[in-house]
Amino acid sequence: MARWEPGARERLVLAALDLFTEQGYDATTVAQIAERAGVTKSTFFRHFPDKRELLVAGQDALSQLLAEGIAAAPADAGPLEAVAAGLRRASDSMGPVNRELGPRLKAAVAASAELRERDALKSVGLAAAMTTALVARGVPETTAAVAGEFGVLAFKRGYAAWVEDDRADLATHTLAALRDLRAASASL
Amino acid sequence: MARWEPGARERLVLAALDLFTEQGYDATTVAQIAERAGVTKSTFFRHFPDKRELLVAGQDALSQLLAEGIAAAPADAGPLEAVAAGLRRASDSMGPVNRELGPRLKAAVAASAELRERDALKSVGLAAAMTTALVARGVPETTAAVAGEFGVLAFKRGYAAWVEDDRADLATHTLAALRDLRAASASL
Repeated sequence: MARWEPGARERLVLAALDLFTEQGYDATTVAQIAERAGVTKSTFFRHFPDKRELLVAGQDALSQLLAEGIAAAPADAGPLEAVAAGLRRASDSMGPVNRELGPRLKAAVAASAELRERDALKSVGLAAAMTTALVARGVPETTAAVAGEFGVLAFKRGYAAWVEDDRADLATHTLAALRDLRAASASL
Repeated sequence: MARWEPGARERLVLAALDLFTEQGYDATTVAQIAERAGVTKSTFFRHFPDKRELLVAGQDALSQLLAEGIAAAPADAGPLEAVAAGLRRASDSMGPVNRELGPRLKAAVAASAELRERDALKSVGLAAAMTTALVARGVPETTAAVAGEFGVLAFKRGYAAWVEDDRADLATHTLAALRDLRAASASL
């Protein structure tokens, strides 16, 4: 049986989040994560250099998708339209596994101060990725920073709504959240 | 010429940041921080339970000042006016020692992944404190979340400007940053 099984990467992430929740981040070893996922330690190391990167990898992929979507938006798109294009690109890449991750990640983060800090850094990293992509389109820096924060809030809110209600897809939820935020900011 | 003389608490924070930058957060001990600050270890422990809390203490105080200022804003103040009142309350509490901290904190954060995560958590905590204070005033949650993010961006930008230019006080810089963000969001 092939050791490089499809789905090993996803199973590793799910197993890791469950173990972090049950026994804490620090106490969880790569060997335990691999065992829970039903793979060998060397399979773990083919996917991730260490348990910390297991958490970072998803963030880097998400940042890249958001930035690519913003860069690929039509030249005449405004800053929030470009953010919407980024949200659509990132949302469309996410399927059932990503939805399954939500409650587990939330439980793991609630259980660990270290993961809370990582999660906060993730928000800051996503905002920075979107701001940089907007500045590259010629958006003034202050406007880009505001639009980037809107993008993070929209992604987080849309993702939370999707975990509660999967009758609509993630893009529908994140784009609805962006419209809500835009309306709220107009009322300020 | 009158020189500003920091107290033991401020000296401990400055010494800690310098040591974190020079040798890393993990490698720095309470004994080293106390020695660098010219105080005893028991003086350290009169001010902070451990080196981690030395960093958290400032954040908690800042969150509280922002929330108090928002709560004390006139009943008819809009969400961003209330945020401005919070920024004023927090800014007015900061003097030369806080300005001195800026470049050192930046250097320490640049040198340490752990401090980068703590710093990110700080931004998230400040936004949450302001959002909660606004919701308590009856501001709808989505509007409060947007206004809270504006507050964090304004504080960070105003603080960075103050470190570069102390001809104006911190409140002047944070309130100017809030006005810039408001104008930028109107252009979205």
